[in-house]
Amino acid sequence: MRVAANLLLRHAREVLTCSGKLPTSAARADFDPAPLGLIEDGAVAIADDRIVAVGRTAEVERSVTLTPGATVIDVGDAMLTPGLVDAHTHSLFVGSRAGEFSLRVQGAGYAEIAAKGGGIAASVKALRGATDEALRAALGRRLDAMARFGTTTVEVKSGYALETAQELRSLKLARSMGDRVVPTFLGLHAVPPELRGTEDGRARYLATVAGRMLDAVVAGGDARFIDAYVDGPGFSVAECAPALERAKALGLRARLHVGQFEDVGGAQLAASLGAASADHLEHVSDEGLRAMAAADVTAVLLPGAAFSLGQAMPDARRMRALGVAVALATDCNPGTSHCDALPWMAAFGVRQMGLSTVEAWFAITATAAGCLDLSDRGRLAVGARADVAVLDLPGWEALPYVLGSPRALATVTAGALRRWE
Amino acid sequence: MRVAANLLLRHAREVLTCSGKLPTSAARADFDPAPLGLIEDGAVAIADDRIVAVGRTAEVERSVTLTPGATVIDVGDAMLTPGLVDAHTHSLFVGSRAGEFSLRVQGAGYAEIAAKGGGIAASVKALRGATDEALRAALGRRLDAMARFGTTTVEVKSGYALETAQELRSLKLARSMGDRVVPTFLGLHAVPPELRGTEDGRARYLATVAGRMLDAVVAGGDARFIDAYVDGPGFSVAECAPALERAKALGLRARLHVGQFEDVGGAQLAASLGAASADHLEHVSDEGLRAMAAADVTAVLLPGAAFSLGQAMPDARRMRALGVAVALATDCNPGTSHCDALPWMAAFGVRQMGLSTVEAWFAITATAAGCLDLSDRGRLAVGARADVAVLDLPGWEALPYVLGSPRALATVTAGALRRWE
Repeated sequence: MRVAANLLLRHAREVLTCSGKLPTSAARADFDPAPLGLIEDGAVAIADDRIVAVGRTAEVERSVTLTPGATVIDVGDAMLTPGLVDAHTHSLFVGSRAGEFSLRVQGAGYAEIAAKGGGIAASVKALRGATDEALRAALGRRLDAMARFGTTTVEVKSGYALETAQELRSLKLARSMGDRVVPTFLGLHAVPPELRGTEDGRARYLATVAGRMLDAVVAGGDARFIDAYVDGPGFSVAECAPALERAKALGLRARLHVGQFEDVGGAQLAASLGAASADHLEHVSDEGLRAMAAADVTAVLLPGAAFSLGQAMPDARRMRALGVAVALATDCNPGTSHCDALPWMAAFGVRQMGLSTVEAWFAITATAAGCLDLSDRGRLAVGARADVAVLDLPGWEALPYVLGSPRALATVTAGALRRWE
Repeated sequence: MRVAANLLLRHAREVLTCSGKLPTSAARADFDPAPLGLIEDGAVAIADDRIVAVGRTAEVERSVTLTPGATVIDVGDAMLTPGLVDAHTHSLFVGSRAGEFSLRVQGAGYAEIAAKGGGIAASVKALRGATDEALRAALGRRLDAMARFGTTTVEVKSGYALETAQELRSLKLARSMGDRVVPTFLGLHAVPPELRGTEDGRARYLATVAGRMLDAVVAGGDARFIDAYVDGPGFSVAECAPALERAKALGLRARLHVGQFEDVGGAQLAASLGAASADHLEHVSDEGLRAMAAADVTAVLLPGAAFSLGQAMPDARRMRALGVAVALATDCNPGTSHCDALPWMAAFGVRQMGLSTVEAWFAITATAAGCLDLSDRGRLAVGARADVAVLDLPGWEALPYVLGSPRALATVTAGALRRWE
């Protein structure tokens, strides 16, 4: 019995499905490509927003009937992969902070930059003053830039508003981009500028986030996760816990900024909450990682930020050795990682963080989708959402090897084809 | 008196002309953007392959008469910059060495990879067996990929043939791409596989390069420079000197691979030859750098190779402090830097090598052109060759800040417009 298809991508030299399971262990056996589920001369058939067949081209063609007017693309020397998944971004922003970056390169520290009006406060000011149209246009351009590198799903955090109505607006704007965006509520990104410098202002903001703001976010229904910046320059575990525990009770799962600058116990907090992910982890103890492994909390690592701040890269090998699942993300944001190129994060992952290329592929596809609670993405399989990247790569091993390219020749997002040539 | 123009790029938020001179000194005064010659709401007018006007849009429009059918582009939020210049590549190659890269990531050393048929020998085998058409297509694809990042001039070395007729073929193929390619003869890249392992074979090859092969290359007229791999794993100063000195006498200027792994005196050799450049320089003494500064030898630094090999980045700040001019290049090659993204090299230059953003701009434009003896490129000026990049950047300071993008929305190469959207 043939199934109908209205889009057929065929004769790809290599299809990478991520159909297997990455071993939980961390042995160098992770160099075995079996979990990638590679198919030579492969094809993917799509009906509307779903994949209806994946396999060798001849088999797929036997199993589908093309609808009248169906699109057929001969992929040839490029690869077909799952649409890439970027599990940590702050890409809803306006305004460049290149000047601040220059100051940092010249040796200015965090405090000096903040004193000059830089840092998160600069983005807060810009976002609060921007129209909906400007914000939507900026995010749309960024999503397109990411798609040129093969990314079809992007997590987008709020947290540049830090005020109830504007945080709601951010989440609504992110949600308005459709299912390619996964919105996360990040009220606990920083104390808003107008409340800084007093214990009382800080305490009031924490209470607002855990109370009125969280209620409004849950009622709004746009956020899929809640996040908090659990770190030395951010908030303590004790400060974050009330909002996160209430959110959990209200059905909003956590994904946390943990240990970018200091280990203040965020990994254990993430584990105790059953969080989807703990992100950054430049500074984390073995105990924290073991707690994450036991609670199935994914580590989302952000090499772009470490590269921008001149930090040592987080040690992905050690995390895998302790049984932690690892995803890689761009951290796209105007301060510390103005980055839209997810394949480069894989290059850093393999070159400087100890991942195998097999692990790196999972880190930007299936594992990343998994920690966003998206079970139907990050893999090419029958029934999965039709998110596919046509990548200009000579084969799976070349992911960390080719710098600059690979670019996506085309992407399919929920069945919608865009050619990027 | 108005001049005729058939292409007008106008209303660019920022035009970066590199019209000034970078101070030779190395003070942090290099953060002063004055040498970049920035113009707000700027325009560039072109007649055939030459720039006929550069300035504010209103002024340029007053100074030119558009020919019938002229193309006019409103650049808007993007930048106009000189077409970028990549002064060191081995981009005439076929075949992926991603497998070898994987071995290296797993800890394999140079010798082990060579024993498995990897290294330069693998590329030699692939190139010798490839048709002209396959080579030209591969190089053309690579030049296009580079142009998507704004690069309009690319130095291309031979050295994957290591045999007289095939080295000539490589140079001819590079030359056949037109003036956007600057061909360099790199016979002294390695001892060809068939002559390895005996002193006699090595000596015979050195004699061939310095004699018959060099004569044929000079007679062929395709090479603009001669290069040699002056390094521990390459050739000694004494081995390289005869070919390089004879080449100089025959009118072929040197640009040398120096100190990627070991300082064997290549910088001093480059200075004594009056070479155009000494490239790599991961390992170089202050004496070597001082000799380069005195002889006006440009340092061409290759962060992609250091990134691929896990080496410390070459210290550009130290070079500038000793008065050496610095260019940045991709080193595009199938072994140690499969890279087409020159802006990323600028990001490494500023983030990890101590360059200011102003220096980084010169390193991929005017300084790079200068060390290729191209006085009419790398700057936007009346009379210069019409090589322009339309870069998706919010301003000059963002070059090292924006990772992934900037992409070129369009490039002009010798007056020929290509849109990359």
